[in-house]
Amino acid sequence: MVKRYLQVQSLDDTLLLLSREFPNAPSVMTVPLENAAGRITASPIFAKYSVPEIHVSAMDGIAVVSAETRDASEQHPVTLSQAVRLNTGNVVPPGYDAVIMIEDVWEADGKYTIRKSASPWQHVRPAGEDLAESEMVMTSRHRIRPHETGGLGTYGITGIDVITVRIGLVPTGSELVAAGTRPKPGQVVESNTVMAKAMLEEAGATCTRYPFVEDVKEKIRDAIATAVRENDIVIVSAGSSAGTRDFTADVIGDLGVVLIHGIATKPGKPAIIGKVQGKPVFGLPGYPLSALTVLRELVLPFLRQYGLHVPEPVTIRAQVTSSLPKEVGSDEFVLCTLGNVGGRWVVSPQSKGAGVQMAAIRANSYLRLPRISEGYDAGDEVDARLMVPVEEVKNALIITGSHDPVLDYLADLIRPAGVSLLSTHIGSMGGILALRKNECHMAPTHLLADDGSYNTEYIRKYLPETSVDLLCIAERQQGVVSRDGISFANLPGRSFINRQKGSGTRMLLDHELKKAGIDPASIPGYEREVTTHIAVALAVKSGEADAGLCVYSAAKALGLPFVPVASERYELAFRKEHENDPRVRALIGAVRSPKFAAILGILGGYETRETGRIRPGNP
Amino acid sequence: MVKRYLQVQSLDDTLLLLSREFPNAPSVMTVPLENAAGRITASPIFAKYSVPEIHVSAMDGIAVVSAETRDASEQHPVTLSQAVRLNTGNVVPPGYDAVIMIEDVWEADGKYTIRKSASPWQHVRPAGEDLAESEMVMTSRHRIRPHETGGLGTYGITGIDVITVRIGLVPTGSELVAAGTRPKPGQVVESNTVMAKAMLEEAGATCTRYPFVEDVKEKIRDAIATAVRENDIVIVSAGSSAGTRDFTADVIGDLGVVLIHGIATKPGKPAIIGKVQGKPVFGLPGYPLSALTVLRELVLPFLRQYGLHVPEPVTIRAQVTSSLPKEVGSDEFVLCTLGNVGGRWVVSPQSKGAGVQMAAIRANSYLRLPRISEGYDAGDEVDARLMVPVEEVKNALIITGSHDPVLDYLADLIRPAGVSLLSTHIGSMGGILALRKNECHMAPTHLLADDGSYNTEYIRKYLPETSVDLLCIAERQQGVVSRDGISFANLPGRSFINRQKGSGTRMLLDHELKKAGIDPASIPGYEREVTTHIAVALAVKSGEADAGLCVYSAAKALGLPFVPVASERYELAFRKEHENDPRVRALIGAVRSPKFAAILGILGGYETRETGRIRPGNP
Repeated sequence: MVKRYLQVQSLDDTLLLLSREFPNAPSVMTVPLENAAGRITASPIFAKYSVPEIHVSAMDGIAVVSAETRDASEQHPVTLSQAVRLNTGNVVPPGYDAVIMIEDVWEADGKYTIRKSASPWQHVRPAGEDLAESEMVMTSRHRIRPHETGGLGTYGITGIDVITVRIGLVPTGSELVAAGTRPKPGQVVESNTVMAKAMLEEAGATCTRYPFVEDVKEKIRDAIATAVRENDIVIVSAGSSAGTRDFTADVIGDLGVVLIHGIATKPGKPAIIGKVQGKPVFGLPGYPLSALTVLRELVLPFLRQYGLHVPEPVTIRAQVTSSLPKEVGSDEFVLCTLGNVGGRWVVSPQSKGAGVQMAAIRANSYLRLPRISEGYDAGDEVDARLMVPVEEVKNALIITGSHDPVLDYLADLIRPAGVSLLSTHIGSMGGILALRKNECHMAPTHLLADDGSYNTEYIRKYLPETSVDLLCIAERQQGVVSRDGISFANLPGRSFINRQKGSGTRMLLDHELKKAGIDPASIPGYEREVTTHIAVALAVKSGEADAGLCVYSAAKALGLPFVPVASERYELAFRKEHENDPRVRALIGAVRSPKFAAILGILGGYETRETGRIRPGNP
Repeated sequence: MVKRYLQVQSLDDTLLLLSREFPNAPSVMTVPLENAAGRITASPIFAKYSVPEIHVSAMDGIAVVSAETRDASEQHPVTLSQAVRLNTGNVVPPGYDAVIMIEDVWEADGKYTIRKSASPWQHVRPAGEDLAESEMVMTSRHRIRPHETGGLGTYGITGIDVITVRIGLVPTGSELVAAGTRPKPGQVVESNTVMAKAMLEEAGATCTRYPFVEDVKEKIRDAIATAVRENDIVIVSAGSSAGTRDFTADVIGDLGVVLIHGIATKPGKPAIIGKVQGKPVFGLPGYPLSALTVLRELVLPFLRQYGLHVPEPVTIRAQVTSSLPKEVGSDEFVLCTLGNVGGRWVVSPQSKGAGVQMAAIRANSYLRLPRISEGYDAGDEVDARLMVPVEEVKNALIITGSHDPVLDYLADLIRPAGVSLLSTHIGSMGGILALRKNECHMAPTHLLADDGSYNTEYIRKYLPETSVDLLCIAERQQGVVSRDGISFANLPGRSFINRQKGSGTRMLLDHELKKAGIDPASIPGYEREVTTHIAVALAVKSGEADAGLCVYSAAKALGLPFVPVASERYELAFRKEHENDPRVRALIGAVRSPKFAAILGILGGYETRETGRIRPGNP
């Protein structure tokens, strides 16, 4: 096995190497006119004939000899000796040289009378007015817009040579199952080549997904060799890491040359670039977000050199809401939530876990932290790169705080109004602090004070000078989730899964433990924290813990017994200054809608007497 | 026939009427995962199972019992009694509660030694970390991004219910032939439903193009009735005007109700809106640009109400280069060329002819002149609506002046550099004046002075204070084009087709006539003007004139005899301040390239000795 570069390369150097090593000769394929929109022309296109080929009428009217009309006027109507009725597009017969609109013609006894002269060639579309035979309709490297298919048809063009790049996608891994099959323990749904196909075909590539290949070196070698033979570029999914069955680099080395193994990006580091039969072979990391990063930052920019359609992302200058420290040496990419709060653009990093594919669905933007940077401090100005149209970012409603599944349903209810609700789950206290920094529109919160009241005490304390309102979502039940119906009093001695400090649920637990005189030390697992209700329920369901505290809907979703402990007021805090923001209005409308009431009823565990009520947060 | 509205309606009123009359209930269809990108979800999507369903390793390494690692350090390595080798994604076996990366493990005799303790659950992906069973993956009305297909697959979703609207497209007209068939005189290639299908399907509609229907009322009635039965919306192409065979409105009236016949827009006025079986039936005007306007301004905004993807156009504030007078009462839409010249955005209206389909290919933007406006004066600030991505408009090279087919080839040569050359043909003098107003980057010109020199005298006169350079394209031959080889001396008495005043070719003609002592009055047709070389050649080919003056390439393109008269210096004038503009640099590079020399050779009629030379325009 030959390795030319043993060191991890920077992203920029890798892109340079790609353009140096590979010729970028795109493939050409012919598509029918009706599939041409969005494709990029491989060569200039010329009109097959003139349009129109012969003089035609531009109006519904009559063809006349202009000389005969010369003396017509209101005072002196002229009845024409020669005239032919024409519709728009009809050929102007030889000998005639003008058209008079039918509205300006009086007909009687088969004769036409006019009251105005016609100038020569008026309302006549001369031959070639639109385009002449052999003239260029469009250049090469032109991305055909949908409406242009009409013109192409008119000029006689029905098969269009367009640029493409044939890409073979080879999924490897004995653990893979196809989407639609529920994975058994240790199995994984193969999604990287599904995603790659959609992303690369949007750019104009022609992708072939090959059958899954087991982690057997010879089988991987055969699969890659076949894909190289049949394509311009090959992308092998996974097997690029340091596991016992990561054969991709070895196989590429056997078949050709490994140019790069390891790119200084996070995520995406284990990527491979090789050359087999003169063609580029990429090794994609297995983690979905790593694969996404390599596709977006490496493969797509490389395809741009082939002439495919890979637009640069639109950016918006925004302030980061939390610090993003990093070490010098790698380009880091962080999926984010971007929105405009009170006229200021704010961008919040999402989870960095490479396995959390939802982060790529929740994100509307991402950041590139440059290789030489040591990261950002909260409040730094950065360029957020958009993953959705600008219009959608402008209509993002940013919600930060305590999680509840009903937020997803509210997101669904306001979507038809064009508002995208983006929620970040960092607990009630996190939400209150985000509201104080004016980094979110609304903060879901259920913070219990010593006097048994909810939320107001915390808003008074943390936003004393700011006018804040509270919109009640519901009074919701929290309770003990378990596999065998454990009650609150029976928690001591049973293994527990807890919520993080600062979350309302944690506060409720501590409040109730104190009230009941239970010592937290008597509950094994009290120190183990997760950040959502559903994570608590899952830990219980998987047997990792015997019990936890969560909302009813989470227990119900996983089919687990639930013993109620207390009801709490789950509210959305928002600054009064935002009360007329159309996004906030849309959300208030959704909370008060009959549809939402029905959803709460179906989910269960919510008391709706207060739902939709707004009260002052710091009276 | 029932007509509820007999008056022409404004565009805004028409849109209001549409939303009032029709329920906007989209159709739902299920698409497979691999076709889901770009589609809009019809309902929220939920995870079919948790991901992961069970704790798995987040790293390549070993599973350990964290308690056993507690005392490990550099000074006190610990050899583990229990450990299992795992690759990323493998299940963490029951009883184990942490993973140590393989890089931090020493293996000998089948035993693993570590030098650092492991905290509980480190490098373990807990069940549900990504998403829990029954959690919402995405809301309804969400446009699926290509990369999201990966996540959908992972969460078990393989068939996705998406929004669509079934639209039946009915082309009517006895004159129609299908694209690919060369139209005989009076025939027209049917392109409106081709264009409509591409435009509407980009928004997510599902279109069916029905067979062409002759102009026979009963046949049109049957076709529309069938289309209404099989679709949510029907669009009938053409037959909406006042010709003798325009039956569309009558037929809609027979089958249902005509709500509107005539919309106050230009182009697009003859549009029809009817209601048959409760469904909207649109009558599209026949002219392509009228049809385009109705589709873009009426049908697509209506589809937005169904939840389909119809983004608002991006706008750029720009100055119009020429006046656009209009009468109050109609919304007018004008296709334009938009570019940034010297830091200022300028927008130039294109031809307004509704039959010139090329205008929609050449345009990168359009203007809406509001109903109540009386139009714009040159220099007015307007909002230009983009028809291409912003990036492409930023890279537009604006060329205004004398036309030559080589400009199209130059456009083709610089396209791979990302530059789009947009040329407007208004003659050499028009170009010089546009350059004076700094409304174009380069002005192609071939203006002959009395002393026999080209271009410099005019630049000295019209841009005396501005430093202007001239880039020579070629010395090109102008000559007499005819069907039977007429020479210049034989022009008197033969019917002629002339170029417009201000064009270099017209000046050359007058210069040569004077030199030869020929009186223009002796040439019938001297007063008839067209604006391009190819239009001259076409007029000759079609028999409308016997002769004209044009460049060799135009005569050659139409296979006509050409008798040379003179060679002239065809140059591109540009302000020196733009000489380092990358777009101008790209064009200079293209003119000097061997590829361009080869093109000039193939086209013929160009002398290339001076090609690529730059000289001062006002020395």
